[in-house]
Amino acid sequence: MSVKGPVVVDLKFERREIDAALANAFKDRTVLRASDPDADLSDARYAVVWKPDAELFQRAPKLEVLFSGGAGVDYILGMPSLPDIPVVRFVDESLTVRMSEWVVLQALSHLRQVPTYLKQQRDCQWQELAQPEAKEVTVGVMGLGVLGQDSVRKLKVMGFNVVGWSRSRKSIEGIETFDSSQLDDFLAKTDILVGLLPLTSETRGLFDARLFSKLRQGGALGRPVFINAGRGGSQVEADLITALENGVLGGASLDVFENEPLEADSAFWQMENVIITPHAASASDIKALFRNAESQMNEYEAGQKLRNVVDRSTGY
Amino acid sequence: MSVKGPVVVDLKFERREIDAALANAFKDRTVLRASDPDADLSDARYAVVWKPDAELFQRAPKLEVLFSGGAGVDYILGMPSLPDIPVVRFVDESLTVRMSEWVVLQALSHLRQVPTYLKQQRDCQWQELAQPEAKEVTVGVMGLGVLGQDSVRKLKVMGFNVVGWSRSRKSIEGIETFDSSQLDDFLAKTDILVGLLPLTSETRGLFDARLFSKLRQGGALGRPVFINAGRGGSQVEADLITALENGVLGGASLDVFENEPLEADSAFWQMENVIITPHAASASDIKALFRNAESQMNEYEAGQKLRNVVDRSTGY
Repeated sequence: MSVKGPVVVDLKFERREIDAALANAFKDRTVLRASDPDADLSDARYAVVWKPDAELFQRAPKLEVLFSGGAGVDYILGMPSLPDIPVVRFVDESLTVRMSEWVVLQALSHLRQVPTYLKQQRDCQWQELAQPEAKEVTVGVMGLGVLGQDSVRKLKVMGFNVVGWSRSRKSIEGIETFDSSQLDDFLAKTDILVGLLPLTSETRGLFDARLFSKLRQGGALGRPVFINAGRGGSQVEADLITALENGVLGGASLDVFENEPLEADSAFWQMENVIITPHAASASDIKALFRNAESQMNEYEAGQKLRNVVDRSTGY
Repeated sequence: MSVKGPVVVDLKFERREIDAALANAFKDRTVLRASDPDADLSDARYAVVWKPDAELFQRAPKLEVLFSGGAGVDYILGMPSLPDIPVVRFVDESLTVRMSEWVVLQALSHLRQVPTYLKQQRDCQWQELAQPEAKEVTVGVMGLGVLGQDSVRKLKVMGFNVVGWSRSRKSIEGIETFDSSQLDDFLAKTDILVGLLPLTSETRGLFDARLFSKLRQGGALGRPVFINAGRGGSQVEADLITALENGVLGGASLDVFENEPLEADSAFWQMENVIITPHAASASDIKALFRNAESQMNEYEAGQKLRNVVDRSTGY
């Protein structure tokens, strides 16, 4: 029996990756697996979870802290059986860097007209397109937490004009920011909209026909572009498909969907101006997750405060 | 007759774009068009050229300065009729920013496995791929002039490990650099090779089977990637196709080719791991070109030194 508090792991990730990461994690702690139906979880003090079993909290009634396996906590917060204990979001440099890689890649792909050039390539067609420069295009980032701020900074380095929106106004050097009362002003300036919002009661269905119609028309790209790497529940996909078909939107990059995996018969797959990735924009690095949770457990047992605890009133 | 020196324009660019840019350029100067066979060019002191006519220099014997319409000057330097006058390269923020947009886009596209995800999208397949992070991948940039240095800086901001090579060693803060005697050491560290070299007698055919075989195998991406936005004459395309087919290279992004436009029957068009753009990585902004040339003419007439003059002994 370890002197340090036992940990239960309930991560719906790839089994072999979890095993590999556990090999060097949680030194001097008992590690239990929720996937083992015979495991006795009754003394577990911590849980590291992604889409945990509904009965986890009955099997582990002494949990003191829950560590989320990803940046999003909407799944955990939506569980009826969730006990009233701190939920720690996974904030990690690797998660942040990967998200910015994806966001900058998608913004550049639409700036540099990748969907059109790919079509030309399939047709063996050598045809240069008129090309605006990044500074002529305004990227509007919704969600200015750790991920959003890093994306903003990197989009700016690449030359884009960048504006930011968050529920309560954030001050970021060198960029114009907007708060919830100024959403229309923000949208009217935006050529490429980047969604990095958590799923909450306020963001569910936020990206709908009405919102898309308020984005700037006739900017340097002609028509606005929608990029979403937050949560699929924030987008109304029927509206999004219509906006892409009728030209309210000129293109999209989607990493998240209302239902995942995306249904094989979804119209998105075959749309030439839509770039799809399978919720892979910023996959959690499991080793980093365990390293992060372990160091917080050690600090917590030494009497220090937990970091990145979710505020249940806002949902992030 | 203007008091300022007359300018002849001989740019093989899109006619309407030239006309639009000329409308507000070269104030108080006579502007002549080489495309007009009746134009009297005998008093022209300056020429702004891209792939100029062979007979330009006979028609305009009093030229004092040649302004190149692009970053590359290999075409001009290869003209037998070229007089012994200064050739000014086009160095411009817009040219630089656009090139870095393209280079970062291509490096991220290979890091984030865009060719594979695009194939999965066509097949309606939802399948996450194992994903290294940018810092696990080393991008090696060949050519550390204005364009190369800006690309290096931005690749580093995106998280890549970056190394640089140039004929004579350049010192750039925070990155390891190599000179012509250390090419093999540079290649052995490189997972993504970026070519931003001018076409000279030393770079012609440089990217061949031998060079590709020296790139790092078994890095985080598995196999190395070749990205070329310099000049097509630097690559041996038969070797490149073989390297892509036999797995010495895992992918490529090509903006330049031995023959442009790329032949419709080239094998490159249909290779799934190759991304093609039609020499569009950094199209010259004609307005910026004229602005740049005009201000240098004014400075030159005021007795100042020309900037960005090509060294004919090195070819750039």
